[in-house]
Amino acid sequence: MTLAGQGRNRGAAAEAEVTMTGTRLDPWVDAYASRAHAMRASEIRALFAVASRPEVVSLAGGMPFVQALPVEMLASTAQRLLYERGDVALQYGSGQGDVTLREQILQVIAEVGVTAHPDDIVVTTGSQMALDLVTRVFCDPGDVVLVESPSYVGALGVFRSYECNVVHVAMDEEGLVPSALEEAIARVRLAGQRIKLIYTIPSFHNPAGVTQGPGRRAEVLAIAQREGIALLEDDPYGLLGFEGEPPRAIRADDADGVIYLGSFSKTIAAGLRVGWAVAPHGVREKLVLAAEAAVLCPSNYAQLTVSEYLATQPWREQIKTFQEVYRERRDALLESLQALMPEGTTWTIPAGGFYSWLTLPHGLDATAMLPRAVANLVAYVPGTGFYVNGQGRQNLRLSYCYPEPDRIREGVRRLAAVIESELELAQTFGTTHGLNPVSGTSVPAPNLQ
Amino acid sequence: MTLAGQGRNRGAAAEAEVTMTGTRLDPWVDAYASRAHAMRASEIRALFAVASRPEVVSLAGGMPFVQALPVEMLASTAQRLLYERGDVALQYGSGQGDVTLREQILQVIAEVGVTAHPDDIVVTTGSQMALDLVTRVFCDPGDVVLVESPSYVGALGVFRSYECNVVHVAMDEEGLVPSALEEAIARVRLAGQRIKLIYTIPSFHNPAGVTQGPGRRAEVLAIAQREGIALLEDDPYGLLGFEGEPPRAIRADDADGVIYLGSFSKTIAAGLRVGWAVAPHGVREKLVLAAEAAVLCPSNYAQLTVSEYLATQPWREQIKTFQEVYRERRDALLESLQALMPEGTTWTIPAGGFYSWLTLPHGLDATAMLPRAVANLVAYVPGTGFYVNGQGRQNLRLSYCYPEPDRIREGVRRLAAVIESELELAQTFGTTHGLNPVSGTSVPAPNLQ
Repeated sequence: MTLAGQGRNRGAAAEAEVTMTGTRLDPWVDAYASRAHAMRASEIRALFAVASRPEVVSLAGGMPFVQALPVEMLASTAQRLLYERGDVALQYGSGQGDVTLREQILQVIAEVGVTAHPDDIVVTTGSQMALDLVTRVFCDPGDVVLVESPSYVGALGVFRSYECNVVHVAMDEEGLVPSALEEAIARVRLAGQRIKLIYTIPSFHNPAGVTQGPGRRAEVLAIAQREGIALLEDDPYGLLGFEGEPPRAIRADDADGVIYLGSFSKTIAAGLRVGWAVAPHGVREKLVLAAEAAVLCPSNYAQLTVSEYLATQPWREQIKTFQEVYRERRDALLESLQALMPEGTTWTIPAGGFYSWLTLPHGLDATAMLPRAVANLVAYVPGTGFYVNGQGRQNLRLSYCYPEPDRIREGVRRLAAVIESELELAQTFGTTHGLNPVSGTSVPAPNLQ
Repeated sequence: MTLAGQGRNRGAAAEAEVTMTGTRLDPWVDAYASRAHAMRASEIRALFAVASRPEVVSLAGGMPFVQALPVEMLASTAQRLLYERGDVALQYGSGQGDVTLREQILQVIAEVGVTAHPDDIVVTTGSQMALDLVTRVFCDPGDVVLVESPSYVGALGVFRSYECNVVHVAMDEEGLVPSALEEAIARVRLAGQRIKLIYTIPSFHNPAGVTQGPGRRAEVLAIAQREGIALLEDDPYGLLGFEGEPPRAIRADDADGVIYLGSFSKTIAAGLRVGWAVAPHGVREKLVLAAEAAVLCPSNYAQLTVSEYLATQPWREQIKTFQEVYRERRDALLESLQALMPEGTTWTIPAGGFYSWLTLPHGLDATAMLPRAVANLVAYVPGTGFYVNGQGRQNLRLSYCYPEPDRIREGVRRLAAVIESELELAQTFGTTHGLNPVSGTSVPAPNLQ
């Protein structure tokens, strides 16, 4: 066919990389929107195709251990649902989501101290879609989003796909650092840029494995309020803590300034793709309109399955089961790391969730090391994927959510061996920066989320 | 909380309407993206809340008649799926969609003459999401999308939410008019604007109820190819024709220049939210990245339910059942219209799909008439919803997909009475333009799709 005659020939250099990844040149390159040039596949994806082989211990993926679900019971729930309410479950529904499910979500978010009205809830196709919709409603190209350092790869992918200017803010062992947040706001505004969102994962952070305490949350919220910036609180892991009560959500203390995102992906099942946003009135109206443009309505089939499950099954008990599964695996990871990692390696101690964030000894490079780790049959996600600016080369994310404890121990053993041998190389030849630099994962691969 | 201090105060007039629809002022208005100002709820929505009462015969909604599905069989399909493959159905999956389902989709699109490779398919959360992703990949603000006149309300909502410049092109009883398409392309380019997509529904058009014949399709395709513009072919109704073979898709004759959208919403069930795009290689790569940013991955639960259904059930027979259901209803509509409509009223004769497009006698206004129709217990969608430019006041869309034939006849009887009384009014007082003008539905309500 004829090539587009009006090609603007914008970003040809950036596109070269994309068109060369396939075997054919793309005749439509010049017809794409500006935002499409920010959509790039990570180079580490090819490696993860290898890493999904069964002989590799994957400490990379964030897949929940759905095998812990009572699957026979879910099967009969789905059957009963279709048999009794098939005409609703198989039909189009409300763009905002099923009203009964929205009422049930109120019970779930009450666990983290959030009170709301069913009208405040927008049900989405996983909370990833809620991230997308919030960004769509708030962010013009060039608008600044402040994110943690590191931050969730899937959120970075969304922000970049809307051509946001993503600015990382320092974290410590209690998460987002208030003084760093204040400095970043001042610096960005001094540069004449407009800040639209502060994006934070206060509980059991992905990938950092840290949690904001109550005092820290209050400080972060006070800054957002004082500066008039919407706080986007992402809380997929909030109910998956290993000790005591779930952390109180920031949204529990401000209904007007916080947009809260929740998900059933980790407390029930990711394959259902049911998440939600709790948003102030005006924002919620825009989110519903954006959702209807995006997908018309979320799946009634998935929503009613969740609703039936919540109505008829002991879902709080099931969450306790998940907590126990993940705590045992967290313990296996931490004990192995403690026993096996060479000196100079450090890691965070997660009190919940799926992840620990590991820092390699000085001079080692997690991205350069990954092919050697995969060759040694263990996989992780290099730290660079969680930054937009090339930071994180000395870091990697370890997930303990999916493999059995013995596999985790074996994975850590293999990883420790790789790090040991990297250290020997570094001591002999200097640093191990060997591969081409990887500029970060711009779009989340589902198995890395 | 403090208001955003950097408010640009852009579009304050446009926003007044939005903030006044709620009871509270929205403190975040000044923080929204430019595109959010194009997201507006239609004023006719409130009316449709009334129209959903059971005593109203709704000829408005495009809901498929899912009651015609073998629901017991679907219930046991879902149960077996979760029981046997729950660990996959409940887990995250591929961003591009389940590979077995993509292979099965090849069998479905073969029915309209399309041959492709599973790699060419991207599974989406309904084909609405495919529309959203294609627009996201192709369209910068201000880019032109050429659409039919009238066009699908949900597509108009997507194009507007990406701030596209939507340009309508004339249709006749065979759909999009080639000479009008050529003229529009020349006119838009002469004005210095860039055309990104030609959006067409060639088979059983929503809302126009017409179908492009093979010659017409060839002409439209030749123009798109000659002008180097991507053709976006939306085909949710292609298998729901009432006579002969399904129309051959335009995509069947050009794999490189056409992006084809399909859906299981009308051939299986809308509540599953499973649709797909078939796209040229480079476009497909971008669509997958955009999809991963938007939702990580489509629901395995819904996808595997569809896949299991296609693998184990006589889905072609079920489509024949749907065809018979809808043909009987189409006949009920057309016979009643023929018997009851006053002189000067005309309508299209759909050979498949869900809709007929009615033109009122001169001087009558479908938007102004709607409240009186609803008071007389019959509902339709006014024609203005299918245009971005205020056209369509003399038109309305009648859906025959959901009500039983006797209800359709009763609905037409009520509608005819309303039109008769409008005609009397018009003959006495001139035209019936009485209400505030409605500028079109900018975002689809699911029950209007």
